[in-house]
Amino acid sequence: MKTIKIGLLGLGNIGTGTYKTLDMNRAEIEKAAGTSVDIVKILERDVDRDRGITVPKEKFTSDPDDIFKNPEIDIVIELLGGIEPASTFMLTAMQNGKHVVSANKAAIAANYDKLIETAKENNVIFRFEASVGGGIPILGTLTGPLCANRFEEVMGIVNGTTNYILTKMTVDGLDYDTVLKDAQAKGFAEADPTADVEGIDAANKLSILMALMFDKYIAPDKIPTTGITHITSEAIEDARSRNCTIKLIAHARKLDDGEVDYKVAPMEISNEHPLAGINNEFNAVFVTGNAVGDVMFYGKGAGPLPTGSAVLGDVIEISKTIK
Amino acid sequence: MKTIKIGLLGLGNIGTGTYKTLDMNRAEIEKAAGTSVDIVKILERDVDRDRGITVPKEKFTSDPDDIFKNPEIDIVIELLGGIEPASTFMLTAMQNGKHVVSANKAAIAANYDKLIETAKENNVIFRFEASVGGGIPILGTLTGPLCANRFEEVMGIVNGTTNYILTKMTVDGLDYDTVLKDAQAKGFAEADPTADVEGIDAANKLSILMALMFDKYIAPDKIPTTGITHITSEAIEDARSRNCTIKLIAHARKLDDGEVDYKVAPMEISNEHPLAGINNEFNAVFVTGNAVGDVMFYGKGAGPLPTGSAVLGDVIEISKTIK
Repeated sequence: MKTIKIGLLGLGNIGTGTYKTLDMNRAEIEKAAGTSVDIVKILERDVDRDRGITVPKEKFTSDPDDIFKNPEIDIVIELLGGIEPASTFMLTAMQNGKHVVSANKAAIAANYDKLIETAKENNVIFRFEASVGGGIPILGTLTGPLCANRFEEVMGIVNGTTNYILTKMTVDGLDYDTVLKDAQAKGFAEADPTADVEGIDAANKLSILMALMFDKYIAPDKIPTTGITHITSEAIEDARSRNCTIKLIAHARKLDDGEVDYKVAPMEISNEHPLAGINNEFNAVFVTGNAVGDVMFYGKGAGPLPTGSAVLGDVIEISKTIK
Repeated sequence: MKTIKIGLLGLGNIGTGTYKTLDMNRAEIEKAAGTSVDIVKILERDVDRDRGITVPKEKFTSDPDDIFKNPEIDIVIELLGGIEPASTFMLTAMQNGKHVVSANKAAIAANYDKLIETAKENNVIFRFEASVGGGIPILGTLTGPLCANRFEEVMGIVNGTTNYILTKMTVDGLDYDTVLKDAQAKGFAEADPTADVEGIDAANKLSILMALMFDKYIAPDKIPTTGITHITSEAIEDARSRNCTIKLIAHARKLDDGEVDYKVAPMEISNEHPLAGINNEFNAVFVTGNAVGDVMFYGKGAGPLPTGSAVLGDVIEISKTIK
């Protein structure tokens, strides 16, 4: 049996979750892939941090070329986060003939066309299931079992931090600042929450969803984006009086003339709509196709193991193809 | 560009929906498949029925061998329904080297092992996404993007008729017999509703889900099955007083000793649980994996176009592999 060899860029939370998931579910993963799967090199300076996993020290390197120029490595998993150097690393990996898996929505949304084109030019596979919805298998479903549809609309709750904050404001009647501080204390919001609460993270994900659903790439900074920082308890009560709940929605819709209308903004969702009941840190993506009608996918949009599960789903797909 | 040629068994509601979806979304389907796709022969006696589609008369045949023995045909789509002759036809198609797509849960659940084994022996692909959850892409997700998980549990609302009846009983406070008659009048329940209301259809789907999730085939008649015919308005009110909703659930759970516990039965679901809000004819499948945690898939579990969308998703997957 061939072994698929992986170079991992970054052993932070998601990298550790991916390593852990591979250890934990090796039998299922290798059965599905039809090959052995091994992470052989890890680009990570912090060798000594206690991550709750045992990683042989010789796997660590601080030189990316130990991965890119290593002829044994088939797949590079990029889990560094941030636009650079992640984007350049993904392109370099592709140019060296490596298939690439990434969970990095910021880098993918910023450089979508270049990444897709470079993968094509170098005849390698580029997959990024974990970049939208974390563990929720939305991208592979849109491009797989649902691809006999012409897509009409997507409405996504794709950011767990803002959904947690809005849920606590709605259920407990607390104001934004109080809930944000609580979310930061509990680890549901970062010390600098800007990318989440201003809707930037959701715009990155909408950019990726639109590229796959409508074959139309819009850079995230061109998506009209409103965050949740101005949402008051009064606005939430007003919505409730109309039998609605306020959610931060990444929304895109195909118009009759073929154009696509898109934005990220807090919206009042009728309590009859399935998205209204998606609470706390959960994510959901509601999609309308011209044959299937309305479908919705729900799950944990973040977290080391859910995201690791999606990353390894991509590794399995690539392994099945190249083995 | 190669053309993938299809033989279709049955042009009833689902067959017509599949034909219609292919006509409507041909551009998307052929782009995704990377080939032309054409239904060249249809096994169907009723040539003259008005189906709202234009089918050239020369495509019809009443002789199955016109499909099985036709060397041009790559894929057979079986949409006859019922266990026989559908099962025998699928096996014969495989033995003649045809890849097979089916939406027929009764036939697949009854003859799962034989169908899988025959496909393997004849080196053909067998796909059946539409057999569980209609248009909801659940099977391809379990065996695709989620397959890096060890699955722990599934809870499914997988029968639209019973969910419609229970929803009307719950929301409108009506009794079972009144709602059943209304559902029959509206076309949401069949004249003989036994397979739905007694849970037989749900047991067929649970059998297929367990085979894929736990690699364990249990014949549907070995699954303890209770339908909804004995559910009273009082039981629904009792559940409501406990903040619960009664749903017909197809349930399977992996036990600590590796065995699987399974049944189809009406269950009280807490109103906090996402399944409690799945109403009317909608279906939803709630799955727990050891890495991804809880995920749920929601959509129309039946209907010609949603089911046709799932059937054609399978056709695209096969076409990509064999083209």
